[in-house]
Amino acid sequence: MAATDGRQDHTMQSDALQEFYSQRGFSGRVGFGERPAVLVIDLAKGWTTPYPASPIGSDLSGVLEQTGRILEPARRAGIPVFFTTMAYEPGLIDAGTVQVKKLSHMQHMIKGSEWVQLHPSLKRQPDEVFIIKQRASAFFGTTLLSQLIAQKIDTVIITGCSTSGCVRATAQDAFDYNLHVVVPREAVGDRSPTAHEANLFDINARHGDVVSVAEVLDYLKKIKTSAGSTTG
Amino acid sequence: MAATDGRQDHTMQSDALQEFYSQRGFSGRVGFGERPAVLVIDLAKGWTTPYPASPIGSDLSGVLEQTGRILEPARRAGIPVFFTTMAYEPGLIDAGTVQVKKLSHMQHMIKGSEWVQLHPSLKRQPDEVFIIKQRASAFFGTTLLSQLIAQKIDTVIITGCSTSGCVRATAQDAFDYNLHVVVPREAVGDRSPTAHEANLFDINARHGDVVSVAEVLDYLKKIKTSAGSTTG
Amino acid sequence: MAATDGRQDHTMQSDALQEFYSQRGFSGRVGFGERPAVLVIDLAKGWTTPYPASPIGSDLSGVLEQTGRILEPARRAGIPVFFTTMAYEPGLIDAGTVQVKKLSHMQHMIKGSEWVQLHPSLKRQPDEVFIIKQRASAFFGTTLLSQLIAQKIDTVIITGCSTSGCVRATAQDAFDYNLHVVVPREAVGDRSPTAHEANLFDINARHGDVVSVAEVLDYLKKIKTSAGSTTG
Amino acid sequence: MAATDGRQDHTMQSDALQEFYSQRGFSGRVGFGERPAVLVIDLAKGWTTPYPASPIGSDLSGVLEQTGRILEPARRAGIPVFFTTMAYEPGLIDAGTVQVKKLSHMQHMIKGSEWVQLHPSLKRQPDEVFIIKQRASAFFGTTLLSQLIAQKIDTVIITGCSTSGCVRATAQDAFDYNLHVVVPREAVGDRSPTAHEANLFDINARHGDVVSVAEVLDYLKKIKTSAGSTTG
Repeated sequence: MAATDGRQDHTMQSDALQEFYSQRGFSGRVGFGERPAVLVIDLAKGWTTPYPASPIGSDLSGVLEQTGRILEPARRAGIPVFFTTMAYEPGLIDAGTVQVKKLSHMQHMIKGSEWVQLHPSLKRQPDEVFIIKQRASAFFGTTLLSQLIAQKIDTVIITGCSTSGCVRATAQDAFDYNLHVVVPREAVGDRSPTAHEANLFDINARHGDVVSVAEVLDYLKKIKTSAGSTTG
Repeated sequence: MAATDGRQDHTMQSDALQEFYSQRGFSGRVGFGERPAVLVIDLAKGWTTPYPASPIGSDLSGVLEQTGRILEPARRAGIPVFFTTMAYEPGLIDAGTVQVKKLSHMQHMIKGSEWVQLHPSLKRQPDEVFIIKQRASAFFGTTLLSQLIAQKIDTVIITGCSTSGCVRATAQDAFDYNLHVVVPREAVGDRSPTAHEANLFDINARHGDVVSVAEVLDYLKKIKTSAGSTTG
Repeated sequence: MAATDGRQDHTMQSDALQEFYSQRGFSGRVGFGERPAVLVIDLAKGWTTPYPASPIGSDLSGVLEQTGRILEPARRAGIPVFFTTMAYEPGLIDAGTVQVKKLSHMQHMIKGSEWVQLHPSLKRQPDEVFIIKQRASAFFGTTLLSQLIAQKIDTVIITGCSTSGCVRATAQDAFDYNLHVVVPREAVGDRSPTAHEANLFDINARHGDVVSVAEVLDYLKKIKTSAGSTTG
Repeated sequence: MAATDGRQDHTMQSDALQEFYSQRGFSGRVGFGERPAVLVIDLAKGWTTPYPASPIGSDLSGVLEQTGRILEPARRAGIPVFFTTMAYEPGLIDAGTVQVKKLSHMQHMIKGSEWVQLHPSLKRQPDEVFIIKQRASAFFGTTLLSQLIAQKIDTVIITGCSTSGCVRATAQDAFDYNLHVVVPREAVGDRSPTAHEANLFDINARHGDVVSVAEVLDYLKKIKTSAGSTTG
């Protein structure tokens, strides 16, 4: 049994649980910074094609649509957009037994295969970087952080999937590096609604501000200048 | 609303939810490796003193006791033990606005203060490293990984708190580096039972094997030789 | 024998060698950014006390003086200053055999000992962070990068020692993260003049701009506003 | 002028300079560990085709030959081999202004182009990982470290180019992670003999053991068992 401080929160309403956390110094509001980037996490076909057609997928049509609503004004404002997918060499020679045993689904994430390609509705532009990652966080084993620093980014707006996996891991790393982390709730998704809700709660408590897509759109309207040239 | 693959898991029994994940290639069993270390996360007075006496604490007496049950045979077998705490400079000059706004409780985690000292029941030995960290993961901004490599560690047994914060973050990083991750369920705790359970589920699905303390004790009995000299 | 492209540079004048590199696309000038920080590397007593009084020291009086010339206007302009030292636990329990065998001098770098304290002439201020590192680079196993990001730093001015060790390693990491790297040549030093010169050449070719202290002072005059509050 | 401890080493013989370093606790011999991997750094066509046919190349025929001498027994013993190259997206959209200004030659390192392909004489096997990196160190922004941990590697034998750039940076990171670092002197090369010699000296002083290819071959003869399956 997990230790607690004497209260049972199983039956707490969401508001009460939030109050419980706020009292203890969690869940503060960080707010937006001045130079945002949009990180679109793993909206590749393997994830966006519902199970069982894809062994790792779920219905993310709403997430794709909400991500599109954010991408449109972001692109107009010249805000950098980064996409990620997960992919390994054939035979998973670059994975390792620990990975393969815990997450056997990675056998479906092979470089060059259909499942690891971005969903076409995202309409990736030539100046938008597409990062192949091998772990949940978009920062692990990639040069994403260096690229954000190059463009003087101070805020990451994270969309995509899964809330309980790659979105949370990316949010945590971004927070650890002192970036402002914003997670628009309707633009992230998970195969499990339970995990989705639990992890949005934890993300808001510990890593970043979980807000509505509408709030992100309001913010993007105020960003006037280009956030930097693509080689910036 | 988060997208799903058409099932509602709100009402799923735990077994059904586990089956749902296993079908999709999560939650595989990694198993123990050959050279373990024990990582005792943040069992310092600030966390082990129940709220409101400590602003960030909860009743972790059970976690301390279960951690002690693991430390005893681990020490006898010469297995390396690492402790962590969180601490910042006075004035939080090494923290950053993003950190301070999201996690205002860090004002209580000042180097040299009472709250950041280890709980005395842990009886830290002179050859056991005590790492001051500044983020949830014991790997972030520390040389822990280098120290584990020096001793050829392939398995980390993680105890302490909080399940939803520093334990999960440490488990994720260890997994990302391809270490075997073992989390003995009774030896980790959280101020929120809900968050504890939700995060144990995610940890087992994505990062490491959540097992009983008894299973860890059985494993430790079989470790015969010292896992390496302390300068190893 | 190392392969070459057919030229012998043993006898090249410095100008010819520089031309050789420039032709091949090295040694470009990056220039200063907009928000600098000063990194003072390892000007602690163990390094600043000449050998053999200190087993690891050399005469760095000129480097201390030149660093002081930079610190004065930097502090007036509110530019963040970071200091580093190297230190391990007693018994080097956090080092590892590989470290100890290659660099036996680390036996003199023990936490709390005299050798790891900053040279008093640096007059560290309460809002200036003092980082204990365990490797050559000030970024390895520390939260320095997060602290720079928190203050939106885009430029690091690196002073201290040793040019061939900790200065170069710090310059390389800063460059890899896409920070502008500036090394004022008279404000860095090395126990070996040969290694000093060879590494200044490599730093300028590969990581950052090696300039005069005078050029840094000119730049600092133009920085008007504070580079950020200390918790920024 | 760099400060020194009063001696001028400009005219020191190599032996005297080595003695000077050894007295100060540098240049210790670490020795080989038990589970080696071979890291072949950047022996891609851009580097192995002599300038000016390749804008970044030099004559590395000797390095290729010596690397081949090491690869042959390594493969027979089942020792993991990793190759690297450097490559960026077209338009260098993932590089950053700092990189491009300092190292303008990276315009020639574009993903999919001829220059970033491995030299065919290396005969890369299907189970040998080919890592695309974007910085000097093979560890920066890659999952190389995780892959080494997965296979319980404790020793890296580094060959390739350039001694003063990617070889040294890779050696430093490997050392910082507490791996045994071995650099066979004839199997690494540099466009500048001066830089080659100066950096071999620094590598041996600070990061790893610089030895002969013959010594590496003797060591490899003694490795009997496979160092782990490729998904290890």
